[in-house]
Amino acid sequence: MPQKSYISNSVIRRLPRYYRFLGELQSEEITKISSAELSSRLKLTASQIRQDLNCFGGFGQQGYGYNVAELRREIGVIIGVERKIGTILLGAGNLGRAITAYFDFPKYGCELTGIFDINPQLEGTEIAGVKVSLMSQLKTFCEENKPEIAVLCIPQESVREVCGTLTECGVRAFWNFSHYDINLHFDGIIVENVHMGDSLLTLAYNVNNRGK
Amino acid sequence: MPQKSYISNSVIRRLPRYYRFLGELQSEEITKISSAELSSRLKLTASQIRQDLNCFGGFGQQGYGYNVAELRREIGVIIGVERKIGTILLGAGNLGRAITAYFDFPKYGCELTGIFDINPQLEGTEIAGVKVSLMSQLKTFCEENKPEIAVLCIPQESVREVCGTLTECGVRAFWNFSHYDINLHFDGIIVENVHMGDSLLTLAYNVNNRGK
Repeated sequence: MPQKSYISNSVIRRLPRYYRFLGELQSEEITKISSAELSSRLKLTASQIRQDLNCFGGFGQQGYGYNVAELRREIGVIIGVERKIGTILLGAGNLGRAITAYFDFPKYGCELTGIFDINPQLEGTEIAGVKVSLMSQLKTFCEENKPEIAVLCIPQESVREVCGTLTECGVRAFWNFSHYDINLHFDGIIVENVHMGDSLLTLAYNVNNRGK
Repeated sequence: MPQKSYISNSVIRRLPRYYRFLGELQSEEITKISSAELSSRLKLTASQIRQDLNCFGGFGQQGYGYNVAELRREIGVIIGVERKIGTILLGAGNLGRAITAYFDFPKYGCELTGIFDINPQLEGTEIAGVKVSLMSQLKTFCEENKPEIAVLCIPQESVREVCGTLTECGVRAFWNFSHYDINLHFDGIIVENVHMGDSLLTLAYNVNNRGK
């Protein structure tokens, strides 16, 4: 079955979940999974899962279920995890350092090639094997290395200017940990906003209102 | 208008977004916002916003719009941001340290009162003013301090055991940065899973498939 030309955002958003979940099954050495079991563990209907996977060409065999390794590999190909997109990180403060040290970028289809900060004392130091450069070297670095993704761990008030520089340098995709709404000011870019605070507030709401 | 007794998860999930957005308006010194403007900036329909806020008693006045400070305060009350829920963090590795140092817990209705790790070298040290204790002291600490939320920054393979201890100690709410599916093994708990990897994979997909 060929891949559909239009794939909705909600389907795309579920792909990483399938990919992660199948990886967990692999680490439990589960090689096959029925559509019903996949559906109960992912809390999606079996028909939803079939529809989602059909968007990408369909993988299951009627009455047989899914081959875990094969399905995961195929979804990995669709996402493009093997490509290792050139990625830079802006802002080597607590958050930036933690993401660099904690996060296994290649596992998520990216390769962290540079870190930038305004603090001259950090220049030339390394975090998890990646060199920290000064923000003033950003343009030259981008011209030479053509990164495609920028991870934004800089303060909100600097984002607009830095994004201006980055888009001029051809960076069009942002993993945004700041609260600045980049989409408001730049067209034709791809943004993933990470709002960890929203998640904690949801938890707080549920704790405070549970059983009321 | 009284608060509805059943509020759907999707409404609850939008509350932090309203709260954050209204905070941004406040910092821009905007005091009033029309339903139309709120809707265009939040990318929700005006009727959706009205419906959401009506679940909590309704705030706007026809033809007048919303008072930013008042609406934000009311939503804060609903979430319970003033309550400062006792919170502990498990795992003082890179991620745990960064969350402690970077994250302003009180802003999100929580107070970080303790950090726990298995590494004896960390015992008694402080991260952002919060003392690190050994995991073996967890039970006693919980009995004395009755934290309600646990932030899980421990490796996946330790989560089940630690959650067992925590639920026995009365902790029923988890901010889960591990990939372990706590819900599968514990009933009646509240979990917010943070899957940052899913967000980066979505970005990678979009970079790799943009314009195809």
